Amino acid sequence: MTPKVALIMGSDSDFEKLKSCVAKLKEFKIEVDVNVISAHRTPDKAAEFAKNAEKNGIEVIICAAGMAAHLGGVIAAHTTVPVIGIPIKSTLEGMDALLATVQMPPGIPVATVGIDNGTNAAILAAQMLAIKYDYLKDALKDAKVKMVEGVEKKDEKIKKAVAEM
Amino acid sequence: MTPKVALIMGSDSDFEKLKSCVAKLKEFKIEVDVNVISAHRTPDKAAEFAKNAEKNGIEVIICAAGMAAHLGGVIAAHTTVPVIGIPIKSTLEGMDALLATVQMPPGIPVATVGIDNGTNAAILAAQMLAIKYDYLKDALKDAKVKMVEGVEKKDEKIKKAVAEM
Amino acid sequence: MTPKVALIMGSDSDFEKLKSCVAKLKEFKIEVDVNVISAHRTPDKAAEFAKNAEKNGIEVIICAAGMAAHLGGVIAAHTTVPVIGIPIKSTLEGMDALLATVQMPPGIPVATVGIDNGTNAAILAAQMLAIKYDYLKDALKDAKVKMVEGVEKKDEKIKKAVAEM
Amino acid sequence: MTPKVALIMGSDSDFEKLKSCVAKLKEFKIEVDVNVISAHRTPDKAAEFAKNAEKNGIEVIICAAGMAAHLGGVIAAHTTVPVIGIPIKSTLEGMDALLATVQMPPGIPVATVGIDNGTNAAILAAQMLAIKYDYLKDALKDAKVKMVEGVEKKDEKIKKAVAEM
Amino acid sequence: MTPKVALIMGSDSDFEKLKSCVAKLKEFKIEVDVNVISAHRTPDKAAEFAKNAEKNGIEVIICAAGMAAHLGGVIAAHTTVPVIGIPIKSTLEGMDALLATVQMPPGIPVATVGIDNGTNAAILAAQMLAIKYDYLKDALKDAKVKMVEGVEKKDEKIKKAVAEM
Amino acid sequence: MTPKVALIMGSDSDFEKLKSCVAKLKEFKIEVDVNVISAHRTPDKAAEFAKNAEKNGIEVIICAAGMAAHLGGVIAAHTTVPVIGIPIKSTLEGMDALLATVQMPPGIPVATVGIDNGTNAAILAAQMLAIKYDYLKDALKDAKVKMVEGVEKKDEKIKKAVAEM
Amino acid sequence: MTPKVALIMGSDSDFEKLKSCVAKLKEFKIEVDVNVISAHRTPDKAAEFAKNAEKNGIEVIICAAGMAAHLGGVIAAHTTVPVIGIPIKSTLEGMDALLATVQMPPGIPVATVGIDNGTNAAILAAQMLAIKYDYLKDALKDAKVKMVEGVEKKDEKIKKAVAEM
Amino acid sequence: MTPKVALIMGSDSDFEKLKSCVAKLKEFKIEVDVNVISAHRTPDKAAEFAKNAEKNGIEVIICAAGMAAHLGGVIAAHTTVPVIGIPIKSTLEGMDALLATVQMPPGIPVATVGIDNGTNAAILAAQMLAIKYDYLKDALKDAKVKMVEGVEKKDEKIKKAVAEM
Repeated sequence: MTPKVALIMGSDSDFEKLKSCVAKLKEFKIEVDVNVISAHRTPDKAAEFAKNAEKNGIEVIICAAGMAAHLGGVIAAHTTVPVIGIPIKSTLEGMDALLATVQMPPGIPVATVGIDNGTNAAILAAQMLAIKYDYLKDALKDAKVKMVEGVEKKDEKIKKAVAEM
Repeated sequence: MTPKVALIMGSDSDFEKLKSCVAKLKEFKIEVDVNVISAHRTPDKAAEFAKNAEKNGIEVIICAAGMAAHLGGVIAAHTTVPVIGIPIKSTLEGMDALLATVQMPPGIPVATVGIDNGTNAAILAAQMLAIKYDYLKDALKDAKVKMVEGVEKKDEKIKKAVAEM
Repeated sequence: MTPKVALIMGSDSDFEKLKSCVAKLKEFKIEVDVNVISAHRTPDKAAEFAKNAEKNGIEVIICAAGMAAHLGGVIAAHTTVPVIGIPIKSTLEGMDALLATVQMPPGIPVATVGIDNGTNAAILAAQMLAIKYDYLKDALKDAKVKMVEGVEKKDEKIKKAVAEM
Repeated sequence: MTPKVALIMGSDSDFEKLKSCVAKLKEFKIEVDVNVISAHRTPDKAAEFAKNAEKNGIEVIICAAGMAAHLGGVIAAHTTVPVIGIPIKSTLEGMDALLATVQMPPGIPVATVGIDNGTNAAILAAQMLAIKYDYLKDALKDAKVKMVEGVEKKDEKIKKAVAEM
Repeated sequence: MTPKVALIMGSDSDFEKLKSCVAKLKEFKIEVDVNVISAHRTPDKAAEFAKNAEKNGIEVIICAAGMAAHLGGVIAAHTTVPVIGIPIKSTLEGMDALLATVQMPPGIPVATVGIDNGTNAAILAAQMLAIKYDYLKDALKDAKVKMVEGVEKKDEKIKKAVAEM
Repeated sequence: MTPKVALIMGSDSDFEKLKSCVAKLKEFKIEVDVNVISAHRTPDKAAEFAKNAEKNGIEVIICAAGMAAHLGGVIAAHTTVPVIGIPIKSTLEGMDALLATVQMPPGIPVATVGIDNGTNAAILAAQMLAIKYDYLKDALKDAKVKMVEGVEKKDEKIKKAVAEM
Repeated sequence: MTPKVALIMGSDSDFEKLKSCVAKLKEFKIEVDVNVISAHRTPDKAAEFAKNAEKNGIEVIICAAGMAAHLGGVIAAHTTVPVIGIPIKSTLEGMDALLATVQMPPGIPVATVGIDNGTNAAILAAQMLAIKYDYLKDALKDAKVKMVEGVEKKDEKIKKAVAEM
Repeated sequence: MTPKVALIMGSDSDFEKLKSCVAKLKEFKIEVDVNVISAHRTPDKAAEFAKNAEKNGIEVIICAAGMAAHLGGVIAAHTTVPVIGIPIKSTLEGMDALLATVQMPPGIPVATVGIDNGTNAAILAAQMLAIKYDYLKDALKDAKVKMVEGVEKKDEKIKKAVAEM
């Protein structure tokens, strides 16, 4: 049995920023169902998608949107599957998207990650799924070890650069 | 034939701030249909309401909501009736509500007025309806004249207060 | 009888951002009267224009301005025709223009759309005019259908791109 | 088997704002382990707690902190259990706490909810746990139904209040 | 010959904050003509006032307004007499009023002082007038000396309070 | 007798933005004394300059600085000659420079113009000097007339461009 | 030999917020010289004080000021003794004071602590002095241990409160 | 005996902005130990480094980090050596990094300098060390003299440029 995540973006222009999210999910062997659905231009499809998500085996939904970013909130309104929101920067340095995603009223949370931070949305989804899927617990720990190694390499590189100054 | 406006608030706690809006609409002899509908807690009712608005004779919809204020956007997504958004201040001085209301993506406008400014929402609704209803043109002009008189009275009052300083 | 909208920009340098607004109005078969009038450099012309707007058959006025964007407010002060404000970004990410446009005192609303969002100004104007002009009701519904189709095409495109990753 | 969540607050003065979080978790029959641990004053305890969380059966960690709110990030650095961050307002309207919680670097996500929004943190935790615990799926759906009923009652109340205006 | 300043406030509710401005002007023996004129509710009176200011012997105009504070800009548009703007805090901590006052387009300056800072508006007016009126040069220097004495007294007071800690 | 203004910039890198200020002052036949003086790097020179300004025939001082822009305040602390502050954008979109310039404590005003707005600083200086120098009254009125003509030309240009769309 | 710190506040009204700073310095057996000196109202005294600081045995200077808080910068301009800045909140939630304190140009640093955070200014001063004074190293470590104990007590208190819910 | 400073950066991508910091420290003959350590990716190494800093002869620690910049706070939590924080701009104009660095809770200060201002971090470190190392007192005074000369040269350059306008 494979864990399954849906990634919804409000506009195809956001895709470039979301490739790292898709790649990271695949790295964790999570099935990912990618969609362009607009909370405002295709509201019925958004509601439909959210209502059927659980039935369709989707266990986490990641929503990426900019400006008055309602996508996460609209999806969360129609499902109890956890919804992760990625505020996409297009105006006002992304502050509008951040506030419109995170400041949800009591009752309907959207788990918000940093502006344009698709990688963290994927890791957060993996962490949620690891509650159920044990293999992800190990994969996440491995990823943490690799991050340590990555930083150590950069440390060496910079130390060398400083020595040469 | 009477013009008809719907006023939707996201929470009953916003009502106190919206009484001036209701009163002003009545002053303009506009029928007003007041509702508590939450974009997030009752999304189906919100969609339903918006889809049937035109059929139900509603010509303008005013939406008041705070925080990640999606109500105006959600209603506008489901209708072509003009939607006026009132950002309600509850957190961050109302800046979150303002941005979440006004920064709509191209295609789905929400006519935004100032934070907590229910009076302006009512006047704006009357101005929109005056495109069709001639009696409102006169009523709006009368209101403008009264505003001038109101300012003049205040001018006299302050001049007197300064003279006594 | 053709609906008629005036578009006023505070500076000719804003025109590039407003072409989509003009084009969208024409798409809706709305007559558009385009003007460069500065609230500060040509205040008498601004007042004159606003006072004569109704008499000249103008039913909605769209005002676009940046910085301490007073244009919408100045025009609205002199007319009861509904005024739509487009905050133009030139400094402070457009935040100054947004606040100067939307935060109008009670009595004189300006229907504010998002920063640089000329398209939404045009659609909002069409929605206001549709209160009176029935053909616009249909045109707006058609536009909504086309938006759905547009999103669906993008959905297909991205799904293909993901499959190829 | 009972799901288990840890709630960590940076200061006991935050407790008043977090009671609704604790109550909501209990409502969902989730065991909750409440702690005062400061990322800055008791950093070793924070690291220790995070490192042992999984071993101690904790499946989700909720962190509440104000100002330069590092608690969520510090805990997330030491565990792969999902971490939910509640920015607590004490200065700058809570904007400092929000940014310090949500703007995590790629690799270490903190699932951020709105400022002071303990209720949403609890519901989000329940949604994450529902991936594994089926009874929570039903409980969350029941809660959604109750929210709808709650809004309907408020709708009636306001309609009555308007009728009496 | 007495120097003459006009003080215009957008609303009589601002008067309390402006008393120190009036008092300070009188202290400098500057004649002050106080008015309530709204840029939006009484735009014709505002234009009229500005156009006749010079003719009426007014040498500096101080404008105080809140929210989308257009008053300074509107007055400055109709005169070449220097205009001082006082942003009045009523919403958004006064940030909207500050930006709407200070961010004027090239060609029409408004000399902006701090939020709610009527005292500084009065002193700035006196400094401008001192270019022409020599007695004000002395009065301003005297005021500076008094400020030094005032600070010294406070210094003594605090030193005593610390000694008693 | 020629009016005389000092222009002080905190850094020579600001000069490019201030050329329009110098040019505009010359246009008004105002003698301009340009200086690079840093409030922080050359504080004694700054104090010295301010203390001798009046004696040296300087009637208005324009200060341009970025970041924690203290230049205007430091100069104003040492003189009663009116000080105009130009906040220069180098970080945070110029918001730091704006607040550090305009939010002066009661007693020491700095007449603040918009971010990077050297032109308005020059015009404001001319308006202040016109209180004493009558020829500047006429020059300022002529400049206003030219601005009207400038806007009219742009109006024609845009009208033509729209006609060709 | 006793370490010596100067604490300068821009206004006596800030003293209430600074008592914890004075108390904390005394706790660390640091001699503290408290002064009210305004960067703008008593600039000569400020310069004088800073120039003589080292000669007078002052090893660290703490400056507390609000609004366009120049005090730290002005003092730092005249000395090479390290200057700590405390932004005092009086307007704009303290954001103006924070930016005016921290955003110093290259060459003249001000070591900025959080808004109204006099306690941290005192501890930072102690940390700087501990570079030279060994007894302070121990005192700072003791204080850290006490902080841990303080948090543990609060942890127990809250655990008890939760148990009783 | 040579003074010793550690410079820690959260990411090697920050190095370009920190070269001036390293160079300035070397200019002051301060030994500098440069490291890439991430508060979130290598938290154990961060804690370890901070705990051993004093023992390793490090007298000041400079931390540079972006986004939710916890590095300074995390290091300061584990040591009593003074910690200087440099907020690095990568998102939101650096405002997130600034607030996450400076708004530390009482007890654990981070001496914050301006956004991206590595030069000031180095000078501040030298000022702290000068409390103990007398040669640095002289070096800092020399640097101040050189700054004056630098500004004077720029003053001449600009004066020439103006003369040629």
